[in-house]
Amino acid sequence: MSGTLYGVGLGPGDPDLITLKAARLISTAGVIAYPTLAGGESFARAIAANLIAPGTREIRIDVPMTPARAPAQQAYDVAAKDIANALEAGENVICLCEGDPFFYGSFMYLFARLSDRFETEIIPGVTSVTACAARTKMPLVARNERLTILPGPLPEDELTARIEGAESVAIMKVGRHLSKIRNVIDGLGLIDQATYIERASLPEERISPLAQAPDNAPYFSMILLTKGADPWL
Amino acid sequence: MSGTLYGVGLGPGDPDLITLKAARLISTAGVIAYPTLAGGESFARAIAANLIAPGTREIRIDVPMTPARAPAQQAYDVAAKDIANALEAGENVICLCEGDPFFYGSFMYLFARLSDRFETEIIPGVTSVTACAARTKMPLVARNERLTILPGPLPEDELTARIEGAESVAIMKVGRHLSKIRNVIDGLGLIDQATYIERASLPEERISPLAQAPDNAPYFSMILLTKGADPWL
Repeated sequence: MSGTLYGVGLGPGDPDLITLKAARLISTAGVIAYPTLAGGESFARAIAANLIAPGTREIRIDVPMTPARAPAQQAYDVAAKDIANALEAGENVICLCEGDPFFYGSFMYLFARLSDRFETEIIPGVTSVTACAARTKMPLVARNERLTILPGPLPEDELTARIEGAESVAIMKVGRHLSKIRNVIDGLGLIDQATYIERASLPEERISPLAQAPDNAPYFSMILLTKGADPWL
Repeated sequence: MSGTLYGVGLGPGDPDLITLKAARLISTAGVIAYPTLAGGESFARAIAANLIAPGTREIRIDVPMTPARAPAQQAYDVAAKDIANALEAGENVICLCEGDPFFYGSFMYLFARLSDRFETEIIPGVTSVTACAARTKMPLVARNERLTILPGPLPEDELTARIEGAESVAIMKVGRHLSKIRNVIDGLGLIDQATYIERASLPEERISPLAQAPDNAPYFSMILLTKGADPWL
């Protein structure tokens, strides 16, 4: 009997926002797997650190920092082989995922390689989108409002068109695209309704009006924009 | 010293998808509040039931079943008064919210009435969007893909335009709008990429291709549509 591959969402960063199910799976795991950036720290492992029991086997997925596609995908090829060996030996493998595994998560690369051969189960997690809304106290969407989620690297005309078509917009992966995104939102006359958030729910969290956001934003940053939801009082 | 108003997300329905923080707040609460539909069952309370300690004071918000705006808002006026009294007496009040409080959640009506007078804290929860993706094993968005979240009651032309502008679409609150939505998706030639899910993560969960979905869908149902995300192998 082969083991089961679990893709486990850990939420936005605060370990207290891990679900009961994820916490139980991690604390009783025989084998865990997680990505690291260029062999350095793993944000996913850091979120779950207090739940990992001594003696748990750890499979590190060392993802190289390069814009090229092939080296990262080779890292997932290697990891998928290690994970497949553990699954074939009858062990369950708990893959730690920042946020939610299927919401811009790198777990998808393992899922694509392994889900046709092994049982898989996905444990959803709190996404950074609702975590940022909670921290900034900005209700996202009510009643029949539309929410659009956009990655910051999209081109300006695409961002403009999509922002125009929704009451609320969350722009992910802001990072070095901040100036471009700010120009787009300013051009639409919406800058006073936009808030910048980095590292939501973590001790180093930072929140400011978009107009005062730093020019060099980290990867884990977001812009939330709401066009004045009707509070229906 | 007044108490704090907590809006606590409970996730999509499986009590195991409650976060550690929400579980702790609920199990140690002195006062909880939750909506009920027309004085009947409360879905929110049912999700949290096993965490509620004996002797916890419960404030029921009996929301009438009517399309009119005023009666429901009067129910929130009444509840806001009860909750304000508890907060003024120095008690914390834990409001139980299906899913996430700021993601189509009725907690927003209490937040709008009370957040200017009392300390508030929002605990984000797992939304039905990522829960449905997890259960159907459909990765939602990767890399620079766009996700649009639409409420089913929107008119056909609006649904059509928004579906065309995103790689992945989640349509919430399907209910009696199912035929209309199916026609729109069929007209766009996308019906084979669409999946219907009701009551995700609960024992009575039901998943089917959209083409075979029931004509009478419950309120807690969703359609997920992905236009073939690139697995990047």
